[in-house]
Amino acid sequence: DELPADLNIPDNYVDYTLKNTKPLPPVTWNNWWKELNYLSLAILVVAPSIALYGAFTTKLRWETAVFASFYYFVTGVGITAGYHRLWAHRSFNASKPLQYFLAAAGAGAMEGSIKWWSRGHRAHHRYTDTDLDPYNAHRGLLWSHIGWMIVKPRRKPGVADVSDLSKNEVVRWQHRWYVWLILLMGIGVPTVIPGLLWGDWRGGYVYAGATRLVFVHHSTFCVNSLAHWLGDAPFDDKHTPRDHLVTALVTLGEGYHNFHHQFPADYRNAIRWYQYDPTKWFITFCSWFGLASHLKTFPDNEVKKGQLTMHLKRLRETQEGLIWPQENTDLPVISWQSSDCRLHQVQEQSQRRPLILVAGFIHDVSTFIEEHPGGRHLLVKNIGKDASTAFFGGVYDHSNAAHNLLSMMRVGILHGGAPHGLEDKVVPPSQRLRVARH
Amino acid sequence: DELPADLNIPDNYVDYTLKNTKPLPPVTWNNWWKELNYLSLAILVVAPSIALYGAFTTKLRWETAVFASFYYFVTGVGITAGYHRLWAHRSFNASKPLQYFLAAAGAGAMEGSIKWWSRGHRAHHRYTDTDLDPYNAHRGLLWSHIGWMIVKPRRKPGVADVSDLSKNEVVRWQHRWYVWLILLMGIGVPTVIPGLLWGDWRGGYVYAGATRLVFVHHSTFCVNSLAHWLGDAPFDDKHTPRDHLVTALVTLGEGYHNFHHQFPADYRNAIRWYQYDPTKWFITFCSWFGLASHLKTFPDNEVKKGQLTMHLKRLRETQEGLIWPQENTDLPVISWQSSDCRLHQVQEQSQRRPLILVAGFIHDVSTFIEEHPGGRHLLVKNIGKDASTAFFGGVYDHSNAAHNLLSMMRVGILHGGAPHGLEDKVVPPSQRLRVARH
Ligand code: HEM
Ligand code: HEM
Ligand SMILES: [Fe+2]
Ligand SMILES: [Fe+2]
Ligand SMILES: [Fe+2]
Ligand SMILES: [Fe+2]
Repeated sequence: DELPADLNIPDNYVDYTLKNTKPLPPVTWNNWWKELNYLSLAILVVAPSIALYGAFTTKLRWETAVFASFYYFVTGVGITAGYHRLWAHRSFNASKPLQYFLAAAGAGAMEGSIKWWSRGHRAHHRYTDTDLDPYNAHRGLLWSHIGWMIVKPRRKPGVADVSDLSKNEVVRWQHRWYVWLILLMGIGVPTVIPGLLWGDWRGGYVYAGATRLVFVHHSTFCVNSLAHWLGDAPFDDKHTPRDHLVTALVTLGEGYHNFHHQFPADYRNAIRWYQYDPTKWFITFCSWFGLASHLKTFPDNEVKKGQLTMHLKRLRETQEGLIWPQENTDLPVISWQSSDCRLHQVQEQSQRRPLILVAGFIHDVSTFIEEHPGGRHLLVKNIGKDASTAFFGGVYDHSNAAHNLLSMMRVGILHGGAPHGLEDKVVPPSQRLRVARH
Repeated sequence: DELPADLNIPDNYVDYTLKNTKPLPPVTWNNWWKELNYLSLAILVVAPSIALYGAFTTKLRWETAVFASFYYFVTGVGITAGYHRLWAHRSFNASKPLQYFLAAAGAGAMEGSIKWWSRGHRAHHRYTDTDLDPYNAHRGLLWSHIGWMIVKPRRKPGVADVSDLSKNEVVRWQHRWYVWLILLMGIGVPTVIPGLLWGDWRGGYVYAGATRLVFVHHSTFCVNSLAHWLGDAPFDDKHTPRDHLVTALVTLGEGYHNFHHQFPADYRNAIRWYQYDPTKWFITFCSWFGLASHLKTFPDNEVKKGQLTMHLKRLRETQEGLIWPQENTDLPVISWQSSDCRLHQVQEQSQRRPLILVAGFIHDVSTFIEEHPGGRHLLVKNIGKDASTAFFGGVYDHSNAAHNLLSMMRVGILHGGAPHGLEDKVVPPSQRLRVARH
C-alpha cells in the first residue's frame, strides 16, 4: 500500500491489458439481476423516493429552502473542491482545517470515500474513452451517468495510483469514520439544524437531507455524462470532454470539462473571470486566508497553444472548402515575342475574348464586364492593356476582395510581364496568410 | 453629361490629382464665417429647433407617435434602399413604381437630390479615407458626421461617374420637381395625414415632420461617422469602415459597413438572417412582388475569403506572441557512438541532470519532476531511458497539451534515435497547423 500501484507496470501496459485480459460476459436478459450492484441501486432509488414522497407531504418553509440550497453548495464543494480538485488532482495544497472541512462536507454527499472516489476518477482521466475508464463516455450517456454504478463493471478499471492518498491523515480519518460521517453529514446535520433553529425537523430531513442529496448526486454524475457530451472543444477534440455553460451551472463549475481534461492539474476549470466556476472562487477565497496554497496553473503559453490549434483546425476546414485561384504552375506562360509590343499576344487574343493584364497575369473578364461595380466602360477601355496602375489605386484602389476576385479570372502569365514594384501584388490578399500543415 | 465623367482620366489619376491640385487654404479664426455653407447650416439648425420648441409646447398623441415612427422608416428607406443601394450602388433593379416611391420617400428625408447624393457617395467609396473622399473619416468624427456639409470642402471630391443616373427617368423627374417634392414629402404629407385623420395638424408638423427629419438626418450621417469608427472589421481592415450592431440599429441596417465597403454592389449589408438589416428585408420583400429584381450578391466564396484572412491575421498575432519549442536545427545532435548502448551518451549525461528520451528528442525534465501530474515516480523511473512508448499511450496517452509541454523541454536530438512509427510524434500537436505567410 505504500508503493505506487503503477510503479512496476510495463511500458505497454494499456495495450497489453486491453488485449490480454478478458472482460466479463455481457449483461443479458437472463443474468441481469445477478449483475447489479444493489447497494448503489438502493441509494440511488431510496433518496429520490424519500424526496418525492416528502415533497408531496411536507410544507416547504423558506428558511429550510434557503438552508437546503446552502447545504447543497457546502456538500457539493466538498466533492468539487475536495474530492476532485484537491485529492484526485492535487491541484492545490490545503491546510488541515480546510481538509477536515472538505472531507466532512464531501462525506455528506454520500459518494463513497475520498480514496475510492479518487481511484476511479484518476482511472477516468488516465484511460478516458477506453474500456479501462470506469465511466467510459463511449458507452452512452446513461452508462456514464449512473449505469457504471448500478451494473457491475465488465472490466476492472485500469491501474491508477492513489498511494499519496493512503498516506494522508485526513483521507485516512475519513475512511475510518466513513459510515458515521455520512450519517452525520448526510442526514444528521441537515435534519438537526432546521429542527433546532426553526423547528422544522421534517422539512430539514426531506429537503436539506434527501432532496439536496439527489441534487448533489446528479450534479456530480453530470460531470461524467453531460460534460462528455454537450458543448465544444476549445482546447482539444481528441477525446469526448466538452465545455458548456449549462453543465457548469449544474456542477458548481465543473462544466468546463474540455479544459479540465487537457489541464487536469490546474485548480481552475474556467479560465475567464466571467465564466461560472464557483469551486475555483471558493479555492481562491480560501487562499486569501492561508487555508489553501500552491494553487497550480498550467502555463498560459501552452493553454493558448491548444486554443490556437483548435481555431486553426476550423479555419483549415474553411480554407479547404473554398475555391482558390489556379496555381501559377498550371497557367500557360505566354512569351514576349514581338519586340515592339510586349502585349502583342495578349492583344491578339483579346480580339476574341476580353483579356486584361494586371500585375503580370492575364485575366479573362468576359463574365464580369457587365457586373463591374465601377462600370463597364472602365473595363472595356482596358481590354488588351496593362491595367495594373489603374487597378491598384491609380484610378481606384480596389478592395482586397476585388483583388481576390480578379485572381479567380487568371488565364495566363505574361513572360517577364510582372512590372517592377508590383511583386507583392502577385499573391492575392487571401493567399498571403494561410493555414499550413506541417 | 452623356459620357462617363471618368472615361478619359489618366491611369494615375489619384496620385496625380492629390499632388497637382492645391487644396483651399485651411479655415482659420479670421475667415471661418466666409467658409460656411449657410444653406446646409440652416437646415441642420432649423429642423432641430422646431423639433425642440415643438416638443415643449405640443402634446404627443400616440397615433402621431406611431405615424412619426412609421414615416421615419418610410423616408429612411427612401435613402437606404433608394438613394444608397439602388442608385448609388446599382445593387438591384427596381420597377418604375418602386423607383417613384423611393425617389419621393427619399426626397422627404431632405438630403439633396439622388444625383447629388450619389455623386458624393460614389466618391466616398472610390477614395475612402483620402482627401478625395468628401467625408474622409480620417478628419474626425465631427467632420464625417456634419462638418463636411457645414464647412465648404477644402478640395473638390474625386471624380465619380453618375452618367447612368443622368439617363434615368425617375432620377431626372426627382431632380426637376425636387423643391416641390421636399416640401410635399418632408412637411406636407407628415402634417396633413395626422391632421386629416385624427385632427393633429400641429403634432404632425412637429413630430412626423421636424422631429422625424432630425432623426433621419442623423441616422444617415451616422453611416459616414459612426460606421467608420465603431466596431470590428470582419472582412478587411485596410480602411476605416466597421461593423457594429448599434450603428445598424440607428441606420436601418447600414451599420455592417465593413462588409459594405468590401462588397458595395451587394444589395445586403448584413449577410446573416439574425443581423439587423431592415433595408435588405425591404428589398427582398419587394422582390417577392416583382417590384425589385436582379438582387446582386458578391460570390460567397470571396466573402468567406475575407473573413478567413481576418481570422488568420488575428491568429498570426497570437502565434507570434507565444513561445515555441527550440528549432530542431538549433538543438545539438548527440551521436550514437557506443554500439552496445544506443542511449549511452544520454545515460551518461543523465547522471548529472534528469534527461528523458521521447520520440528521438532528449528532454531535460528537471523543472517538472515534482510537478508531474502523473507523479514523480513515473518520471524518475524513466530518467536516462526511452519513454516514448509509456508517454504515447503505453502507460498513459498524454494529452496534446502534455506533448506540447514536453517539446518545450527539448535539449537535444539523438542521432538516429527517432523510433520507427513515431515519425508523426516529432512535430508537437501545436505545430502541426500554423499560420504561414506567403
Ligand atoms: C480587371 C478586373 C477588375 C475587377 C475584377 C474589378 C473589380 C471591382 C470590384 C469588385 C469593385 C467593387 C468595389 C471593390 O470591391 O473595391 C470595383 C469597383 C471599381 N472599379 Fe474595378 N475591377 C476591375 C478593373 C477595373 C479597372 C481597370 C478600373 C479602372 C480603370 C476599375 C475601376 C473601378 C472603380 C472606379 C470602382 C469603384 C466603384 C464605386 O465604388 O463607385 N476597375 N471593381
Ligand atoms: C517526460 C515528460 C513528461 C511530461 C512533460 C508529462 C506531462 C504530463 C502532464 C501534463 C500530465 C497531465 C495530464 C495531461 O495533460 O495529459 C501528465 C499526466 C500523466 N503522466 Fe506524464 N509526462 C511525462 C512523462 C510521463 C511518463 C514517462 C509517464 C509514464 C511512465 C507518465 C505518466 C503519466 C500519467 C499516468 C499521467 C496521468 C495522471 C492522471 O490523470 O491521473 N508521464 N503527464
Ligand atoms: Fe471527465
Ligand atoms: Fe477530473
Ligand atoms: Fe462609408
Ligand atoms: Fe455605400
